[in-house]
Amino acid sequence: MMSRPYDVDVAVAGAGFAGLNTALAVSRAGRSVTVIEARDRVGGRTKPGHLAGSVVDLGGQWVGPDHRRLLALAARHRVALEPQFDAGAKLIDYQGQVRPYTGLIPALPVLALLEVDRVMKRIERMAAALAASAPWNAPDAAALDAVTVAGWLDAHVRTKGARMLMAVAVRAVFSAEPAEISMLFFLAYLRASGGLEPLVSVRGGAQQDRFRGGLHQLSERLADEVGRGRLRLSTPLLAVEQDMDGVTLRLGGGDSLRARRVVLALPPALLGRLAGQPAWPALRAGLNQRMAMGSVIKCHVAYATPFWRARGLAGEAVSDRGPFSPIFDGTPEGVSHGVLSGFLEGEAARRFTVAPPAIRRQAVVDTLVRLFGPPAASPIDYVENDWLAEEWSGGCYAGLMAPATMTGFGPVIRQPAGLVHFAGTETAIDATGYVEGALESGERAAAEVLDALRSTP
Amino acid sequence: MMSRPYDVDVAVAGAGFAGLNTALAVSRAGRSVTVIEARDRVGGRTKPGHLAGSVVDLGGQWVGPDHRRLLALAARHRVALEPQFDAGAKLIDYQGQVRPYTGLIPALPVLALLEVDRVMKRIERMAAALAASAPWNAPDAAALDAVTVAGWLDAHVRTKGARMLMAVAVRAVFSAEPAEISMLFFLAYLRASGGLEPLVSVRGGAQQDRFRGGLHQLSERLADEVGRGRLRLSTPLLAVEQDMDGVTLRLGGGDSLRARRVVLALPPALLGRLAGQPAWPALRAGLNQRMAMGSVIKCHVAYATPFWRARGLAGEAVSDRGPFSPIFDGTPEGVSHGVLSGFLEGEAARRFTVAPPAIRRQAVVDTLVRLFGPPAASPIDYVENDWLAEEWSGGCYAGLMAPATMTGFGPVIRQPAGLVHFAGTETAIDATGYVEGALESGERAAAEVLDALRSTP
Repeated sequence: MMSRPYDVDVAVAGAGFAGLNTALAVSRAGRSVTVIEARDRVGGRTKPGHLAGSVVDLGGQWVGPDHRRLLALAARHRVALEPQFDAGAKLIDYQGQVRPYTGLIPALPVLALLEVDRVMKRIERMAAALAASAPWNAPDAAALDAVTVAGWLDAHVRTKGARMLMAVAVRAVFSAEPAEISMLFFLAYLRASGGLEPLVSVRGGAQQDRFRGGLHQLSERLADEVGRGRLRLSTPLLAVEQDMDGVTLRLGGGDSLRARRVVLALPPALLGRLAGQPAWPALRAGLNQRMAMGSVIKCHVAYATPFWRARGLAGEAVSDRGPFSPIFDGTPEGVSHGVLSGFLEGEAARRFTVAPPAIRRQAVVDTLVRLFGPPAASPIDYVENDWLAEEWSGGCYAGLMAPATMTGFGPVIRQPAGLVHFAGTETAIDATGYVEGALESGERAAAEVLDALRSTP
Repeated sequence: MMSRPYDVDVAVAGAGFAGLNTALAVSRAGRSVTVIEARDRVGGRTKPGHLAGSVVDLGGQWVGPDHRRLLALAARHRVALEPQFDAGAKLIDYQGQVRPYTGLIPALPVLALLEVDRVMKRIERMAAALAASAPWNAPDAAALDAVTVAGWLDAHVRTKGARMLMAVAVRAVFSAEPAEISMLFFLAYLRASGGLEPLVSVRGGAQQDRFRGGLHQLSERLADEVGRGRLRLSTPLLAVEQDMDGVTLRLGGGDSLRARRVVLALPPALLGRLAGQPAWPALRAGLNQRMAMGSVIKCHVAYATPFWRARGLAGEAVSDRGPFSPIFDGTPEGVSHGVLSGFLEGEAARRFTVAPPAIRRQAVVDTLVRLFGPPAASPIDYVENDWLAEEWSGGCYAGLMAPATMTGFGPVIRQPAGLVHFAGTETAIDATGYVEGALESGERAAAEVLDALRSTP
């Protein structure tokens, strides 16, 4: 039987940073490429919103100094950095009391502070001992993958303050409860970004800078580089049919696309939706069943002025009762109004995704009033994005592994299935979970398919 | 805009026991119903296989004395029970030694035996304290849902022997490692079947009897009762589109089916594949991401005679190193050959799903030789079913909950999404995970849709 002719050398599914970066590398190597995307926009888990006359990021927004690919992309397109404002005191709301603090670690009883230091060092050591590309091979991998982070903290952390702070850190990094994720996955994720401290820090860490005009616009610039003619938006992928010679993608609306190789730049939870013919390998299908997305609703609240700055506050806060935590100063440079940006995460996101919008907004404002005082009661604008309700993300920030997933299924995460390759920040070795990881995964997936195409006629 | 006319009152997706029992109740109430099924057969996670001239169950096979719906179905169709053979000594392979034992608990050091007794009683008490219909409401639900069964056992069981035995029990009941499931889910599952002892027992328990000719045939009889004209096999469901007046199911091959109400009788992991329009409620989508299926390969090995019986052995065995464990005498009544039936479960299933068939068969036979001696080296026939590789099950026996799933998402498991209702053994309050639970869920889902149809014109 004659095969149907190829439409392109490489088809990429998903026009987030991973898929776009895959397509760019493929295209630059002289191979034809088409990117299909279910949404009517590029950018995946980044997207623009409008607040008090400015554009804000409703998804991914920060960049750290180690995110060299993302920084290079911004430099290439002359998109300027804006340092994350953090001058002044931060606030911690703990056991019913709001206290200011400076530095990385909040004001807690001294025993708790000592334990936080000890536990963080221990966690950093444990993370550093893992091989970034194969954390499942560690000698104690099975034991670490048999417990949740909550279970591990319960067994190894004694003071309430240290436990609370570790839970706050887990929620902030994963938008999940410590009970949701495997200790091994937690450590591997830290390993991929150089440890816990860089992940939770502003200066020198993953929250150091934002982009003037928003991170989301870099996906638009990347799409421009790929070439708009190579993108098909509003085109959901339904099924992936492979034969000896190529792959046919069945698309929404009855259309299809035939390629020599395919890169699926989607989180595993979305891969689980795709029918495969032949059926997906058992362990790949199993992994797709086991990487639920984080739970987060991101909210920006605008005020007439950044009133907290005048009171010596950085606009940064964490709370043990939330529901809105953590919070950062989200004021764009060059405006007169002020913005407080933050998150409903994990259990709070689940509780408020089913609440009426007015109740949700009130809960956010109420938290801000408790933390920043009465002026926080009078916002001039509000915008939010419930990533749990985004059909084509299924949650944010990233796919997470429950216990026994990394040891049982982790080794297949970057393993091609026939002529189909995988990208997406979940597959990244460097900075997994971040836009930087998405870009890295695109480079790797592109290298895989280019290599495969070179070795076939 | 005029709505498209209804094809049926109720459309059911999935022709396992849950979907068929839904359809039967709907049809008996005088409502029109169509069942669509992706496979070319009914029966879901039960199916027939052929071994040494007999028919064997490649999936679900046993029935316990409490499974009143399944027993009634068998009685209605005059399908006889065959007691599970268990006369004689059982074997335990532990720390390199194979020992015979009788009764429920294997021969272990006395301290381990005392601890097994204590731990089982404690677990039974904890399970009995839960509300079967809402285990997430228990006062300690959050704490129990924050740890894996492995983590709980590690904290509460000291002797190696007791830990091993609990792990063997978890694998046997869930076809999963103790690290994969939440302690709260484990207890709730036990609660739904009256405790751990009934689940792991032959006499008086969930393995007491089999069906002459196989359990799978009862799905055929149930399909006959529904009426073959109401079934559409080989018809995958792709998408579920709801409006104010009804539901349109988009089917493979471009066809569609319009109904007033729909019952999806599929495990959550398969629900996760279905596009919804409007998009599924966030917590429903989240649950679908979080109930991975168990991992199991079921194998039957036939010998010229049931040689173990002559040596006073029951043919029942468990092993701490496996990989083939547990094992039962699977000999059908009235044949001269003998059958040993068993499972590659959890981690062993993952390891052997990617092994060549000959290597897998050899590992099974090697385990049997270690346990039952040299005669086990010469099987006359062999048949297996890798449920991990079954695209339309995604694993077996059932969907499992990792930590934080039951408290975070459990309450939506039986919650209709608009005009769409949910069945399947995962949604059962009674005997969840078993065929009995599937039948119960069908009764409940049918009652829901019939009630809804009565209250709409």
